[in-house]
Amino acid sequence: MTAASTSFSTSDAPSAGVPIDDLALPHVARLHAYTPGLQPDEPGWIKLNTNECPYPPSPRAAEAVRRELGADGASLRLYPSPASAALREAIAAHHGHGLRAENVCVGNGSDDVLNLLVRAFCSPEAALSFTVPSYSLYPVLVAIQDGRAEEIGFERTMRLPVEKIAASPARAFILTSPNAPTGVAFGRAEIERVLAAWHGLLVVDEAYAPFAREDAVPLLARYPNLVVTRTLSKAHALAGIRVGYALAHPATIAILDRVRDSYNVSRLSQAAALAAIGDTAYYDGIIAKIKRTRDRHLALFGQGSNEACKMENEACRNTPGAAAPHYPLSIHHSSSAGETGAFGWFTYPSQANFIFTEPRDARGKTGPAVAAAAYEHLRANKILVRYFPGHPLTASFLRISVGTDAEMAAVHQSLQAWQTNA
Amino acid sequence: MTAASTSFSTSDAPSAGVPIDDLALPHVARLHAYTPGLQPDEPGWIKLNTNECPYPPSPRAAEAVRRELGADGASLRLYPSPASAALREAIAAHHGHGLRAENVCVGNGSDDVLNLLVRAFCSPEAALSFTVPSYSLYPVLVAIQDGRAEEIGFERTMRLPVEKIAASPARAFILTSPNAPTGVAFGRAEIERVLAAWHGLLVVDEAYAPFAREDAVPLLARYPNLVVTRTLSKAHALAGIRVGYALAHPATIAILDRVRDSYNVSRLSQAAALAAIGDTAYYDGIIAKIKRTRDRHLALFGQGSNEACKMENEACRNTPGAAAPHYPLSIHHSSSAGETGAFGWFTYPSQANFIFTEPRDARGKTGPAVAAAAYEHLRANKILVRYFPGHPLTASFLRISVGTDAEMAAVHQSLQAWQTNA
Repeated sequence: MTAASTSFSTSDAPSAGVPIDDLALPHVARLHAYTPGLQPDEPGWIKLNTNECPYPPSPRAAEAVRRELGADGASLRLYPSPASAALREAIAAHHGHGLRAENVCVGNGSDDVLNLLVRAFCSPEAALSFTVPSYSLYPVLVAIQDGRAEEIGFERTMRLPVEKIAASPARAFILTSPNAPTGVAFGRAEIERVLAAWHGLLVVDEAYAPFAREDAVPLLARYPNLVVTRTLSKAHALAGIRVGYALAHPATIAILDRVRDSYNVSRLSQAAALAAIGDTAYYDGIIAKIKRTRDRHLALFGQGSNEACKMENEACRNTPGAAAPHYPLSIHHSSSAGETGAFGWFTYPSQANFIFTEPRDARGKTGPAVAAAAYEHLRANKILVRYFPGHPLTASFLRISVGTDAEMAAVHQSLQAWQTNA
Repeated sequence: MTAASTSFSTSDAPSAGVPIDDLALPHVARLHAYTPGLQPDEPGWIKLNTNECPYPPSPRAAEAVRRELGADGASLRLYPSPASAALREAIAAHHGHGLRAENVCVGNGSDDVLNLLVRAFCSPEAALSFTVPSYSLYPVLVAIQDGRAEEIGFERTMRLPVEKIAASPARAFILTSPNAPTGVAFGRAEIERVLAAWHGLLVVDEAYAPFAREDAVPLLARYPNLVVTRTLSKAHALAGIRVGYALAHPATIAILDRVRDSYNVSRLSQAAALAAIGDTAYYDGIIAKIKRTRDRHLALFGQGSNEACKMENEACRNTPGAAAPHYPLSIHHSSSAGETGAFGWFTYPSQANFIFTEPRDARGKTGPAVAAAAYEHLRANKILVRYFPGHPLTASFLRISVGTDAEMAAVHQSLQAWQTNA
């Protein structure tokens, strides 16, 4: 950088005469970008704000990257496999149910796949529909596309509005199951009720399905208008490599491949993903650990909330073959140092790797101001969770990613201190 | 995979009742995807078809990836820096000229950046313009966007049609310099003539500029409507990690960031790119080697072609401060084992890392059939080059990426054998 730099393009430099905002498409000039969770650079944070996995990925992932690198990274001079061919085979085999490579499209994260779906199926005329609240990226992707969005609101019960979906004139519908940010999952039977009644493209965003009791993958063989999206960012502990995928009928995959960037997944990401997908034992182990921690802390947060108990019992009824409801859970089986009691906060029966809970202050109050105060208290203690003030059904809640037992104990302790003094 | 797989989704299964093509947007259902160069899996090929670097990347890239991995890849569980923040700083410093991080947007390859530009500046009403022939991805990106493309044709001279560009009603114009697939570069003064006359967004795609005599980067400080795109796939020998970037006014960068995927570049790619960008000595060394090999083989292919001599002399006149024309080059200074003579084929004066030459058979004939025959001969000898039959100005040519001296000697020998027997 030279002294000349002062003459050029500082952010407060006058943009007068810069017609860039006029040249950009009007809807782009108006856009608000998606806000990702904070990614602090400095160490010392307990980071439970972006649903990352608290455990490292399969050691086979790092080994595969080292193998791909060789001594000097010579293979990096070459483009990757355009279709991530070997990875598609491995993903199909991982899921079974008759899936083949031609049922798989690999993306640069599942966000890439969702973006491709929006580009192929959504326009100002062809609406994309989704439930609200759910993953806040969907409306951003639709806005980038200048497409029409049709939002279908949940009630606080988070019951799936099957009839509303069936009556939707949308071209495509994204259903998040388990839902984000509540963690509530929709059973396979419920999803099949939607498919039986609706003939648009049903995209089930299963980013969190590895932590759920069931998923929609077995339905793919019978419903050509079903798409299931997955990511390696959560249960495979590989958010850093950006790999996600869609499972669908080959005709849908062919469409996604037409709008996909030819070389969308790097060599190192393909290698890491391939190795991790193959390490089923490690993957199952991670999921079991996270579910154990989650279920214990669901009980600790929710214990004594009648609303949560009722909801959990209902969720189990909607999921044939599901485990018996785990509310009420004896506190004696789950207590540990620092976890001295249950909060009795309304907490959704999460089947994801996060807990969505409604903080209650010392006077028993809930609401946006209470949730914001709890969020700030945690943040002041270097614990990052996620707070979504933008919707009435989320503004009174915090979303806490399931961390290690030690991290969750720290959250519990910190919130206990907050509640005492709030 | 189980036996049940036979009942599901083979590519010849009936798609009857599958309304996917009706659900997809009409322009998507009609799309033809970009065709990337072949990426053969089996070894033994001399691969000169996708302009990859024949040398490995800076050893610092592999070191940085190993450092990021640590023992067990633990950091991969975390999302990458959404903005590739450190990399933006490094790229700005690499280019100097007063550029700062706010002048840089990093993409998952420069194809990602081009895609963002199309999404932000092109629609059915707002045309995107580009010269033809040039990078064949541009019309594909416009078609995915259902945008309007306006093609401005080159003559065989490859002289920049400044007046036609200045008269273009397009919103944005992509100028490839050096051009692909001819390798002809446009001087900074010529690009400035365009900027002086035209007020749309001028995107100079400089994927190959590190191999050229000059580039448009110094113009950024004076023209807020200029965007320069770059890639690490060529001169940094890192096609496998998918990193490219745009340099532009902060207002343009802000627009690209609004349509960009939040986590578009993986942790490993950011680490590798950051290390490679910092290794200027290695980078300069690679470029010098490739230019030496290129210039020798330009002479070997082109020697004796009056048309090429004339064009090179003219190109030098259009590039103030350029080196003296290197045609005619004495064959005695450049001959080596296996390179027994010059072809005298018309060969564009390339400033890129490839050679675009018009094969001439034993009877002195040129044309699409001759070029196709030469391509097939090379391919039968396990040498992959690129053949573009789709345009009259390219259909008689082959594009040969500059490989190692040994690889280029093999190409020369193979084409000599072909010419003798053709």
